[in-house]
Amino acid sequence: MLENDVKIKLRQIVGESHFKDDMETLVTHSYDGTPMLQQLPEGVIYPKDTAQVSAIMKVLSEHRIPLVSRGSGTNLCGGTVPVQGGIVMVMHRMNAILEVDMQNLTATVQPGIITKTFIEHIEGLGLFYPPDPSSMAISTIGGNIAECSGGLRGLKYGTTKDYVIGLECVLASGEIMRTGGKLMKDVAGYDLTKLLIGSEGTLAVITEATLKLIPPPKYKKTMLAMFKDIYGAARTVSAIIENRIIPATLEFMDNPTIRVVNDFAKLGLPLDMAAILLIEQDGEMETVERDIARISEICQEEQADQISIASNQEEALKLLTARRSAFTALARLRPTTILEDATVPRSEIAEMVLQINRIALKYNVQICTFGHAGDGNLHPTATTDARDHDEIERVEAAFEEIFEEAIRLGGTITGEHGVGLVKAPFLEWKVGSTGIAIMKSIKQGFDPLNILNPGKMFAKESRRRVVIDRV
Amino acid sequence: MLENDVKIKLRQIVGESHFKDDMETLVTHSYDGTPMLQQLPEGVIYPKDTAQVSAIMKVLSEHRIPLVSRGSGTNLCGGTVPVQGGIVMVMHRMNAILEVDMQNLTATVQPGIITKTFIEHIEGLGLFYPPDPSSMAISTIGGNIAECSGGLRGLKYGTTKDYVIGLECVLASGEIMRTGGKLMKDVAGYDLTKLLIGSEGTLAVITEATLKLIPPPKYKKTMLAMFKDIYGAARTVSAIIENRIIPATLEFMDNPTIRVVNDFAKLGLPLDMAAILLIEQDGEMETVERDIARISEICQEEQADQISIASNQEEALKLLTARRSAFTALARLRPTTILEDATVPRSEIAEMVLQINRIALKYNVQICTFGHAGDGNLHPTATTDARDHDEIERVEAAFEEIFEEAIRLGGTITGEHGVGLVKAPFLEWKVGSTGIAIMKSIKQGFDPLNILNPGKMFAKESRRRVVIDRV
Repeated sequence: MLENDVKIKLRQIVGESHFKDDMETLVTHSYDGTPMLQQLPEGVIYPKDTAQVSAIMKVLSEHRIPLVSRGSGTNLCGGTVPVQGGIVMVMHRMNAILEVDMQNLTATVQPGIITKTFIEHIEGLGLFYPPDPSSMAISTIGGNIAECSGGLRGLKYGTTKDYVIGLECVLASGEIMRTGGKLMKDVAGYDLTKLLIGSEGTLAVITEATLKLIPPPKYKKTMLAMFKDIYGAARTVSAIIENRIIPATLEFMDNPTIRVVNDFAKLGLPLDMAAILLIEQDGEMETVERDIARISEICQEEQADQISIASNQEEALKLLTARRSAFTALARLRPTTILEDATVPRSEIAEMVLQINRIALKYNVQICTFGHAGDGNLHPTATTDARDHDEIERVEAAFEEIFEEAIRLGGTITGEHGVGLVKAPFLEWKVGSTGIAIMKSIKQGFDPLNILNPGKMFAKESRRRVVIDRV
Repeated sequence: MLENDVKIKLRQIVGESHFKDDMETLVTHSYDGTPMLQQLPEGVIYPKDTAQVSAIMKVLSEHRIPLVSRGSGTNLCGGTVPVQGGIVMVMHRMNAILEVDMQNLTATVQPGIITKTFIEHIEGLGLFYPPDPSSMAISTIGGNIAECSGGLRGLKYGTTKDYVIGLECVLASGEIMRTGGKLMKDVAGYDLTKLLIGSEGTLAVITEATLKLIPPPKYKKTMLAMFKDIYGAARTVSAIIENRIIPATLEFMDNPTIRVVNDFAKLGLPLDMAAILLIEQDGEMETVERDIARISEICQEEQADQISIASNQEEALKLLTARRSAFTALARLRPTTILEDATVPRSEIAEMVLQINRIALKYNVQICTFGHAGDGNLHPTATTDARDHDEIERVEAAFEEIFEEAIRLGGTITGEHGVGLVKAPFLEWKVGSTGIAIMKSIKQGFDPLNILNPGKMFAKESRRRVVIDRV
């Protein structure tokens, strides 16, 4: 419980109405997009600017109170669950686009801006910000930076870290630090900008970001290729890239996903296919047409059963729907949906999918797999029921084995969702005990009192996993 | 002086012939590409593999002996001068290309491979590794990673950090750590790969790197545009980008540089121009032709006096020569050439060049400016004489004021050369005292005994600058 004088200090900083500790507010901020994790904070605070964030951190630092900063909480790793109580800081009031610099092709924003709002604003100015996480209609740019979010355009355009070139942040001490700038190149000291991206709120509170923008592609074309042989689909992914073509999007859905999606969206997809690839290319018209033609040839060479190329925007949208609706469709099946994030070198996609299917059978759980095949980033997704403790144990055992396989294939435990609470026990598998020790030393340097999002990333010992019913 | 038992241990690890402490070897490794800096090491060691590097670090750690790891020492920031003595570790024996993975489009190399050798090997396989620092005929990939090297293709393709996706390194303790992998996406913990890139040998010894390769551009076109008005040239740089065109190369030379280059390479350049832009675009033929045509229009709109478009590879090479020979031409003028690295937002290029010229006049020194205009990365270059202490003092005062101006314009003290010894006193201007404190805490975590390249990056207090005659 927060002491009264702490509450008074916090209210003095943000004003009466921007600090809340009523039960409804606390419950609303006790969980995030991750199923089965919940912990009540002791207060929720809504700062309006960097000075307030700094003042708040000074108070929390003085009283050693944990702080979880968050945007919309769409993350899937338990990254913003306040597992050690304390204060949740919601960044939604700091949601301004401070500047779009047309000469330097940069935008400077506050962290609370909704990703999609920002992207639409930028596109309205004839520019392009590629990172497009599936949660972008709700997620914030600050959250995207904290998690280093990816999306469907990652293969060609990279992820959030490729577009953040400057940050302002508030340290645990309340000190304000600026990194980078409107600079395409900057090697003045260690790259703190990149270190902060994906640091999941454990190193600092991000209060401002300068983003690189690029010219938008002029033309786009979308196609689906369907395979009876999953290896044919996987070979196609590799063959496209070996043919020196980097598509904007190269997505994968396995048979169980195809069935669920078709049932949900009534797309008339053939149900006997082992895998579907969704492929998009963008750029100059001539290049796009040539690439799509060559990709079609490759699909045929790899024995694709059907190939559909969208002839207009409407048809493209229909093809995209198949992939975009995967999560929603899966979420309808059972009360609880656990979306995972194993990532392998792209040459290992087929092997990884086969291993996932073997493991699902072994543990008698339902796992559908889709994801960003071009990046090797798969989303094996379990549809289950949090109330069935026996089944949840089997799901967890299955995912543990999936992570093991990913590591064995040269992969990683998370490609774009982050470590948070959920992956903390597995982080050492990827980075080793030396990696953990080095990361902990970095955390110690930034946050010696361990008040910034404590219990995340290194939570192996202190993990508190509260299973609740969120049907 | 090294104790005898240390020498015995080191010789046991690498073999008699791969540890040297004769005076000739020590002198050869007492300096790098930076003028006026020299300090003798106490020994030079040439490991053949990671196990040897690890064993060496354990010995040095035990005896608290400083270690400077280096490739060819082409850096321009005093980054590999062994200012605190100790051992210089030369990575040239570890120069293998361990693998080129055609499915995943990655290469795994040892750090000692010469950049150009690597690039040529990769190009022979029909692939592309963009970072092309001017020193690439001599520099090593390991050195490029330590400094986060840029080059002429940085505007469109980014720099070294955009292509390193996995590292193996040896920590000060001798422990071996692996980061990243053949993975297009990996958010498992803090991004140690990006943190190590540009860390100038102060955090770890890089022993292996996995590099991302991309498909090569199919077509290329080169042009020169000459301006009597420097603002016209600068406006052209911004206008090209505002027109949503990102050229592969967008380089700048001011009038003093034009004169020197012309005198050196007999190119028949007009000597009354305030600035020349060298522009290259690559990609699909149609796109390149369209972009070059539009860029020519922009140059005309901005009152370019002359525009030459290369009609073949031979002519392109001639145009490139003008820019590529800038450093060599300048180096002929006077005994000592100091090549600096101020970087600003690209919208500030004209202002920065004018400030540089004002400052050169003020201190009565000769400074020619060329560089990567598209990146805002300028190389003001002083031609001087290390024996003339009065002039050197004026040169140093001039550069100090140039860095101040760069910071004032939202820029940085170094865009691609690194901090090392030369920029250490200025690092705080860019990153602030908070940034310095955070960076020092990171250093402390990696290297608690401060034996990895000590005296660099944070050398403000302990700077030892030994002016010698290297005519």
